[in-house]
Amino acid sequence: MRVGIVGATGYGGAELLRIIHSHPHFEISSLYTSSQQGKDIHKHYAHLTGIIPSTLEEINPIKMAQDTDVVFLAVPTGVASQLAPELLSAGCIVIDLTGDFRIKNTEDYEFWYKRKAASKEWIDKAVYSLPELNDSSIEGSQFISNPGCYPTATLLGIAPLAKAKMLKEGSVIVDAKSGVSGAGQTISLGNIYSELNENLKIYKVNHHQHIPEIEQMLKQFDYNSPITFQTHLVPMTRGIMSTIYGTAEGNLTEEEIWQLYKDFYTDKPFVRVRDIGVFPATKEVTASNYCDIGISFDERTGRVTIVSVIDNLMKGAAGQAVQNANLVFGFEETAGLKFSPVYP
Amino acid sequence: MRVGIVGATGYGGAELLRIIHSHPHFEISSLYTSSQQGKDIHKHYAHLTGIIPSTLEEINPIKMAQDTDVVFLAVPTGVASQLAPELLSAGCIVIDLTGDFRIKNTEDYEFWYKRKAASKEWIDKAVYSLPELNDSSIEGSQFISNPGCYPTATLLGIAPLAKAKMLKEGSVIVDAKSGVSGAGQTISLGNIYSELNENLKIYKVNHHQHIPEIEQMLKQFDYNSPITFQTHLVPMTRGIMSTIYGTAEGNLTEEEIWQLYKDFYTDKPFVRVRDIGVFPATKEVTASNYCDIGISFDERTGRVTIVSVIDNLMKGAAGQAVQNANLVFGFEETAGLKFSPVYP
Amino acid sequence: MRVGIVGATGYGGAELLRIIHSHPHFEISSLYTSSQQGKDIHKHYAHLTGIIPSTLEEINPIKMAQDTDVVFLAVPTGVASQLAPELLSAGCIVIDLTGDFRIKNTEDYEFWYKRKAASKEWIDKAVYSLPELNDSSIEGSQFISNPGCYPTATLLGIAPLAKAKMLKEGSVIVDAKSGVSGAGQTISLGNIYSELNENLKIYKVNHHQHIPEIEQMLKQFDYNSPITFQTHLVPMTRGIMSTIYGTAEGNLTEEEIWQLYKDFYTDKPFVRVRDIGVFPATKEVTASNYCDIGISFDERTGRVTIVSVIDNLMKGAAGQAVQNANLVFGFEETAGLKFSPVYP
Amino acid sequence: MRVGIVGATGYGGAELLRIIHSHPHFEISSLYTSSQQGKDIHKHYAHLTGIIPSTLEEINPIKMAQDTDVVFLAVPTGVASQLAPELLSAGCIVIDLTGDFRIKNTEDYEFWYKRKAASKEWIDKAVYSLPELNDSSIEGSQFISNPGCYPTATLLGIAPLAKAKMLKEGSVIVDAKSGVSGAGQTISLGNIYSELNENLKIYKVNHHQHIPEIEQMLKQFDYNSPITFQTHLVPMTRGIMSTIYGTAEGNLTEEEIWQLYKDFYTDKPFVRVRDIGVFPATKEVTASNYCDIGISFDERTGRVTIVSVIDNLMKGAAGQAVQNANLVFGFEETAGLKFSPVYP
Repeated sequence: MRVGIVGATGYGGAELLRIIHSHPHFEISSLYTSSQQGKDIHKHYAHLTGIIPSTLEEINPIKMAQDTDVVFLAVPTGVASQLAPELLSAGCIVIDLTGDFRIKNTEDYEFWYKRKAASKEWIDKAVYSLPELNDSSIEGSQFISNPGCYPTATLLGIAPLAKAKMLKEGSVIVDAKSGVSGAGQTISLGNIYSELNENLKIYKVNHHQHIPEIEQMLKQFDYNSPITFQTHLVPMTRGIMSTIYGTAEGNLTEEEIWQLYKDFYTDKPFVRVRDIGVFPATKEVTASNYCDIGISFDERTGRVTIVSVIDNLMKGAAGQAVQNANLVFGFEETAGLKFSPVYP
Repeated sequence: MRVGIVGATGYGGAELLRIIHSHPHFEISSLYTSSQQGKDIHKHYAHLTGIIPSTLEEINPIKMAQDTDVVFLAVPTGVASQLAPELLSAGCIVIDLTGDFRIKNTEDYEFWYKRKAASKEWIDKAVYSLPELNDSSIEGSQFISNPGCYPTATLLGIAPLAKAKMLKEGSVIVDAKSGVSGAGQTISLGNIYSELNENLKIYKVNHHQHIPEIEQMLKQFDYNSPITFQTHLVPMTRGIMSTIYGTAEGNLTEEEIWQLYKDFYTDKPFVRVRDIGVFPATKEVTASNYCDIGISFDERTGRVTIVSVIDNLMKGAAGQAVQNANLVFGFEETAGLKFSPVYP
Repeated sequence: MRVGIVGATGYGGAELLRIIHSHPHFEISSLYTSSQQGKDIHKHYAHLTGIIPSTLEEINPIKMAQDTDVVFLAVPTGVASQLAPELLSAGCIVIDLTGDFRIKNTEDYEFWYKRKAASKEWIDKAVYSLPELNDSSIEGSQFISNPGCYPTATLLGIAPLAKAKMLKEGSVIVDAKSGVSGAGQTISLGNIYSELNENLKIYKVNHHQHIPEIEQMLKQFDYNSPITFQTHLVPMTRGIMSTIYGTAEGNLTEEEIWQLYKDFYTDKPFVRVRDIGVFPATKEVTASNYCDIGISFDERTGRVTIVSVIDNLMKGAAGQAVQNANLVFGFEETAGLKFSPVYP
Repeated sequence: MRVGIVGATGYGGAELLRIIHSHPHFEISSLYTSSQQGKDIHKHYAHLTGIIPSTLEEINPIKMAQDTDVVFLAVPTGVASQLAPELLSAGCIVIDLTGDFRIKNTEDYEFWYKRKAASKEWIDKAVYSLPELNDSSIEGSQFISNPGCYPTATLLGIAPLAKAKMLKEGSVIVDAKSGVSGAGQTISLGNIYSELNENLKIYKVNHHQHIPEIEQMLKQFDYNSPITFQTHLVPMTRGIMSTIYGTAEGNLTEEEIWQLYKDFYTDKPFVRVRDIGVFPATKEVTASNYCDIGISFDERTGRVTIVSVIDNLMKGAAGQAVQNANLVFGFEETAGLKFSPVYP
């Protein structure tokens, strides 16, 4: 399968290149850019020297539909709202890594993203796919909206309890922490090394745009309260940890809750539920597509604490996008994604 | 005033040396050790070469009472439970940086610390002093129990609301994050660079020994529920952030809550309440005695989020110990502690 | 091919597991340990949960010869000097990642390593193989001595000039820098996070045990002077950079020197000589088997500066060991090693 | 003494504020800016909240001459070439932290800095002062040119041998490494966290603008050859290490060389020559004005290796500037600079 990538110079794009370079069924056909046509990708990413020889091409939907079997959009949020419909209309199969088609309610999108929503028609056509939580097969879909990094970690951590209707309404607080690569190659004072190194920050307090994405899915599970969701920037490049607090209904023991998780993810190759009393650290999934989960119940408070970790660029972006592409084309879900995390 | 330090080779001890070296009223008289007698401190801490010429001496309570006006115990928890009473009996004034005399209920201590409590007699004599929250003066006290790092950040963040009886019972969740120096010079696989770098971990889930210290103080404020308190290890050397979640009673607006904090800390030189919408990062207090606080109220959920940051070795240990010593001797509270944070 | 690994709990072992897990011709058969028999590898390395199910077995040369086609020794230096001969005598094919068989002169080994050398008989049988610099094929060899991390980066950086006899005798100075994982899981004060983070150290000044390994190879190139070689510890987990200074004979221009390198490595898939004026950074080879080289000639001083970077755990250890194993068995040199560096 | 700072929003400016805040003889009078008039400094540097209340003022030489006793120029290189003469003409005493007046030969400046030199008249008036190496007192000087960070570490490391005429011509190679704060708050792709973290880079190969500054001083010591000087970026915020290689004349032993250094710096409070066999690490001088030096002689090669470390923002910029200001006004050289390094 010939793969086109728009936005290969971003970190999500770099990870797509790394994965697809070793994928048994996909191969990189073309890289597209809105601003750097003619540049060699290895001028931007020296680590790709001699591996990915492609020159960046300009975006041309008709030509892209001919030259590719699938296009990944690893562009900044906002760009996809225009670009995806053009590509889809030209006949491309599109996996969109941006936030532009995740929120079905355009008012919610515009409130949280502070920008104009894509057209409702195309939003409705987009299939939001967090594979482990999908209700139906996405095989043959033309347009996939790939989940956000925080929602992936958070929803995988919360879904077994929520889908079992065992989460007390109004009880969910998510304290999320991310490595810096989530900000991509944004060139700003706040993103420079000396400002972030040896520093821990909270940001977008009560206003992170991933809140409506998580709540939208929780509503599908019949959990209808707003959640408290705060995000922190940790001085490391990769990794997300969602520490999720909630109150469990039904007088479950810790072991029963743990069993619920084990059963829920029994056939899901990328979710690893740790043993009782063992909690994952972010580096244990670095550069891989795994989501690792640890579970604890505190009898003193009646609260459950769930720890869910992913690599934000992999299961939180490029890895999950390839997982979705595998499913769209009917390949094995793990094709090209079976590699071990890189440790240490 | 002549200062003796027991445990100068730990990181808390190193910070005491740094502060007292520039303190207008204290000077380092002697350094004591249980295991490295005769060694020069700069063999252990090369950064002190030429600054602190002291040779480590063996512990001798009678001699220490003669040679010092105040002794700081910067020893591992457990050591002070025996040592402090010996020093106090010999007539020393003692500032104890360990956890051994913080918990008034010995059963609680033994449950959480998993070790034998100090004698109840001496525990009762110890004055737990988190200066900004003290009800009465500690001037002239002989025995101060210095608070833990997490309790300092957390209690300063929560006290204004709690003391105002505006925190809903059962609503408090604290998601705390610390730099690695909190583990001191512990030599273990879990503390080596390659295991911690580029990694984020949760640890002591539901079992951190600082929980009873926080709850003990909250009870004094008439908040009587157990709290959920989780701790995370962040890949940086210094800094603690407590992200505190709670539900406020009384229909306060964000501005009213913020005003409550501003008023509460109006005469407290080491607490800086940030403007509404501004949140502190840990590096903004590095190497200083400040505790910086940011406040947010979310109308969607009715929850308050308080962010409180300190340098764990300073306001969380050595800085607060010197602040307490200043108060014991009737010096200005800020003596020797007025320096700016080190940034970047 | 069935692979056995002795020392899988070290970082070199962890990388072997990662590579072999995705290798087309090798599969992990057994993991051996001298001290942790019966333990599951994922108790030590949680990142391998669900990937590498093996339980650690005790070392038994006879059984190992039956159960494996090749054994990698990723043990501490000193252990292999005894173990390798036992395994070889039992019929194993052995790739030794330690320093024990690299130095052909046992006096030199004992001077630099400060320990007893292996028996001269077995040292003579060991084939030292830095593949890009080998004079003859190693296919069918039973016993490979895998080069050290610093020698790999340094020799690949220096070989084209040295083999061309264009390096002035006595002119070579190597300023080498390494990430911390080179120290493995050594549990010592000097290896803990707070001591190494935000810190840059020089170590083993004039006494690093990799000096005789580099000089031994240089002598094969007819460069016979001792080199100045200093090593520094950089606060990062992975990566080695050798900055190599020397004086070139023969009035070559920068372009001619560069062309010499391009030609020398023209058929070497893992060496990437960068364009003139472009220099590699360590992260551009992270988690890959590449060695990237940049070249500069300074007309003011007549000196050449060569920059050579590798991932110390990959091309500097496990990656090169697998590369050697590929060659021993006649597989394609790049089998299982073609993956892209992980960036950022 | 009333201090004015131009460029307080840079990292050098931040350090000046930190030092002067605790200085016994200086106090911050005014902060000046070319672009952010009216802004509170704590809007830029939250760590200064409540400490330094100043509002940024516009640059006005006449007013500055009235309002201050000394002005520090912590502006980007290039800005001082115009500004310093204006301030000096208006009667200000000026300590210039930029490179604009360091190079006495304007052709050299223009070659290395790739920009127009300041007027020769003012360059000649500027007193280049690296205090430990000054030949005469600078008390009463109106215009001080403060040395660069790399030249400070390098020249202090090399001066005892060079001044003793014991360095072989043509033998000096300096491999210098710096933390990232040396790049200041430069907002560029190359300066963002994810590009620099876990990465080691060489930069400005053979072209660093600090080369002529070092060579200019070496010529004063009668060492007349060009030096090889390479600079590397290390993933840490602060610290410079210069590893200096040279050949010593005169058959000195290691102990004799070491004694030469001890004698040379015997009355210099900020230079700490370590014991033989002991080498400084950068963190051992963090946030202090010390320069620590380690010395080694290798009999195998006849080469000396000198290791010199400083905090680039302190002894490499703001600390040395205050040291110079102390000397200009006849204060004790160490006034306001006696504090201990911050460790860990």
